[in-house]
Amino acid sequence: MSEFDIIRKYFSKSVVQKSMLGVGDDCALFTVPHGNEVAVSKDLLIEGKHFFSNVDPVSLGHKSLAVNLSDLAAMGAQPIGCLLGIAIPTVDHRWLSKFSKGFFKLSNEVACPLLGGDTVKSSSGISISITVFGAVPVSQAIRRNGAKLNDEIWISGNLGSADIAYRIITKQIMGSKSLLRRTIRALDWPNPRIHLGRCLLGIANSAIDISDGFLQDLSHITRSSNLGANIYYDEIPFDKYLEGKVSQEDIKKAILNGGDVYELCFTASKSNHNAIRKISNDTGIVLHMVGKMVSGKSIKISPHDRSILYDINGFNHF
Amino acid sequence: MSEFDIIRKYFSKSVVQKSMLGVGDDCALFTVPHGNEVAVSKDLLIEGKHFFSNVDPVSLGHKSLAVNLSDLAAMGAQPIGCLLGIAIPTVDHRWLSKFSKGFFKLSNEVACPLLGGDTVKSSSGISISITVFGAVPVSQAIRRNGAKLNDEIWISGNLGSADIAYRIITKQIMGSKSLLRRTIRALDWPNPRIHLGRCLLGIANSAIDISDGFLQDLSHITRSSNLGANIYYDEIPFDKYLEGKVSQEDIKKAILNGGDVYELCFTASKSNHNAIRKISNDTGIVLHMVGKMVSGKSIKISPHDRSILYDINGFNHF
Repeated sequence: MSEFDIIRKYFSKSVVQKSMLGVGDDCALFTVPHGNEVAVSKDLLIEGKHFFSNVDPVSLGHKSLAVNLSDLAAMGAQPIGCLLGIAIPTVDHRWLSKFSKGFFKLSNEVACPLLGGDTVKSSSGISISITVFGAVPVSQAIRRNGAKLNDEIWISGNLGSADIAYRIITKQIMGSKSLLRRTIRALDWPNPRIHLGRCLLGIANSAIDISDGFLQDLSHITRSSNLGANIYYDEIPFDKYLEGKVSQEDIKKAILNGGDVYELCFTASKSNHNAIRKISNDTGIVLHMVGKMVSGKSIKISPHDRSILYDINGFNHF
Repeated sequence: MSEFDIIRKYFSKSVVQKSMLGVGDDCALFTVPHGNEVAVSKDLLIEGKHFFSNVDPVSLGHKSLAVNLSDLAAMGAQPIGCLLGIAIPTVDHRWLSKFSKGFFKLSNEVACPLLGGDTVKSSSGISISITVFGAVPVSQAIRRNGAKLNDEIWISGNLGSADIAYRIITKQIMGSKSLLRRTIRALDWPNPRIHLGRCLLGIANSAIDISDGFLQDLSHITRSSNLGANIYYDEIPFDKYLEGKVSQEDIKKAILNGGDVYELCFTASKSNHNAIRKISNDTGIVLHMVGKMVSGKSIKISPHDRSILYDINGFNHF
């Protein structure tokens, strides 16, 4: 089976609009709505590093696209389309069929059609490289460096569950089967906050998606905005089901340093507090105010508790 | 060394224009010139498959970007910028430094700044995934399916040398050191025909870059344009230095089926013949008219010579 057959069989399903040229030419083409600029992001997922060899291919197809869409969400961009590069050692039809199922389900849900890509043979292991394109009104993208002094710091959804699942699977902590069942959904099926990101345009001063760990990702905001942050630990949202199932220490580590979350962390002026509460009500997405931007360079966590890990030690790729 | 340190150290050098947001946020941002649409392309390069482990990292940096730019060239798009995803087993500073040198030299030459990307650890081997963005006037991109009956078929540059080098290195054919020196430049330093592609806007009816082999790539034009092609074998350009150094059979195979060429194959009405000759004169790029689009479905090669490989057997990834 040639590369072209694989592309035709598994990856030519996107509903591509008239203004787009999809799979099957040297480039894909798309137009950008007037007054918008293009936001682009690319993430690589490597077998054994970003996903386990025995992961369900349906969830892998979902997650590969979701983690990229999450970057668009963090800037407030509306998806336009994506490219998929995939390196596989052999043509496994069952695997490809399931992977493309998970991929296209999300792609259709968020109207982010597959426009093209590249399918190649790898010497060993699967590598997935996705690039997403989005549109955002010129000069309105929510950037990391836009946080202002006294901004409130917000988080969507819950932190920690994905990390607990990851550490149960990698045998770093002990956890029951029911705990794994409860937490693995967060790890395998992250929910890109596209709609929330769009709602935050003109409301949030800065935003980032939490992929490497809350403290590490927040530090990108503090550093690039030349500010520090005070975090109210007790306000950070997590699944209360975890309590008693793993140690408090493990919960704290998961919340502060656990990666693979794909919730949004954003900052906004206190004057937008009620507007943000309204967004939460309107969208049904839980939003928690967990801290404040302050002068200085450090991220401080209160209450002062020596058992809380102060070091910014999120997911490090090397 | 963290992912962020690697990005900062080796990949933050691009001259990014004011209208762009480069390395260091969730997404890169760029604007598109009024009246243009966006052309995007992505190629994956896998160690052991698309490049040899002992390849000079400088040339690899060049080639990784060049093969992507070649797709923009084939549609007549002007580069806007690119994203780089790179998976490496260990942080080899010497390798990264050389790779980024080759990458940025070409990136600067064609004004295609690096806007962002992803650096991750691989379990084994190097994978490189590049996405390029270009701008092309709305509805003017040169597509594969635009060839018209009686169009002349043109090729830029020379075919065959890259394939001869590849087959000497992989010991499929015998070749002297001087022959390898002469041909390896074509394999390692392909020249993306960006400027030529731009000149062909409004002139060419269809185009493709020759990455998988002349006959195979031409077959994408014939198939998607619902036409056949007659090729005049004796008109196909190749480095005459090859004659006598390898067999006629090997030269034919290299010319017709050899991949990794990255020259453009395009079709245009006979009425544009002189305009194309002028483009060749103005740009200094050698252009040869090598055939004609005809009705039917097959690609015929004349003179009829049984020793010529009729089968479309270009680079097949699986």
